[in-house]
Amino acid sequence: MNPTDRIRRQMAFAAEIDKLKGIERMISVIGGARRENSAEHSWHLGVLVPLLAEYAPEDVDVLAVQTMLLIHDIVEIDAGDAFCFSDEALEGQEERERRAAERLFGLLPADQSEALRQSWEEFEAGVTPEARFAVAIDRFQGLLMNYHNNGGTWIIHGVSRAQILSRMAPVQQGAPALWNVVLDVLDDVGLSAEADPRTDRERTLAERP
Amino acid sequence: MNPTDRIRRQMAFAAEIDKLKGIERMISVIGGARRENSAEHSWHLGVLVPLLAEYAPEDVDVLAVQTMLLIHDIVEIDAGDAFCFSDEALEGQEERERRAAERLFGLLPADQSEALRQSWEEFEAGVTPEARFAVAIDRFQGLLMNYHNNGGTWIIHGVSRAQILSRMAPVQQGAPALWNVVLDVLDDVGLSAEADPRTDRERTLAERP
Repeated sequence: MNPTDRIRRQMAFAAEIDKLKGIERMISVIGGARRENSAEHSWHLGVLVPLLAEYAPEDVDVLAVQTMLLIHDIVEIDAGDAFCFSDEALEGQEERERRAAERLFGLLPADQSEALRQSWEEFEAGVTPEARFAVAIDRFQGLLMNYHNNGGTWIIHGVSRAQILSRMAPVQQGAPALWNVVLDVLDDVGLSAEADPRTDRERTLAERP
Repeated sequence: MNPTDRIRRQMAFAAEIDKLKGIERMISVIGGARRENSAEHSWHLGVLVPLLAEYAPEDVDVLAVQTMLLIHDIVEIDAGDAFCFSDEALEGQEERERRAAERLFGLLPADQSEALRQSWEEFEAGVTPEARFAVAIDRFQGLLMNYHNNGGTWIIHGVSRAQILSRMAPVQQGAPALWNVVLDVLDDVGLSAEADPRTDRERTLAERP
């Protein structure tokens, strides 16, 4: 092959990110036949963006959000997927992901490398309206999957209502109209405020001013 | 659950399209460990859109192309993935996909149902600059995968160079700068004009005025 250096770099990146199809998340596909991988998870998010953009509290650049979500997990190719409720798995994950971003986005021509790197950092920082909405959609999809799997990883790993609410907090910020859905879902899978005794202590702590 | 009817419809669609993760394509992930599914394939295309948009011969609406590619295979949930080189598999596929589009996009609120349906039809028709570029990217990703699998489905199923060139023709239209890559790839996997004796008759036919 003798394409231009630019095309060669783009093709190398395109081939390398194929590995995201082999990165397993904790959450299962609906029905529970197998775990979802990070590539198909990212696809799911990408489709949801234009459908749920009306719930962003401010106008967002839909293309920027969509691209952000399509690439936000690519660093897992090197860093792996860390279970969000495991402190042990999260230890050192930030540094692993930073190195992964350097290597993976670095495969691209400089301008595109820089653009994707910035988009990934924007998502991680979660500050701009686009990033806040993107994080909300990422969380909301996890909720949707666990809802349709009768509580999924929440039940399997004994995650408390308080832990889930803390994980889902970005939905309240980034897509407030969907917050009631979060609360309804927790009730429906048996993690209502009354039914989850594990959360008592955490709720008491959370209610302090 | 008691969300608004609009949110309920959006969530029903979001859950239903999860099934695309279970639709297998003929092509394998790079390395050949297993077949690629249509959800992760669509993700791969979505990432490629902003990276390769510079090769579209006309300005294209990148968000429209990205959304188009993320949803273009959803009809396979009902209609299945038809192997592009099998006339038998393609028989009746258009009608199956039309019915699938009606049911699946019909899950959404009317305005969004209409928008996605139109985007899917635009892709299928392949006439607008957006659709021409989208089809080119869809074909080019298949080429990339087969290239990294030493010819992949082309070799396994004895597909001829002429058949591949006909399948890849949209790349020449929708992303002309990538056409040389197509020709180089075919040479590299042993399907050069000289090396593929199966194409002799087809080449003769193709060369007729």
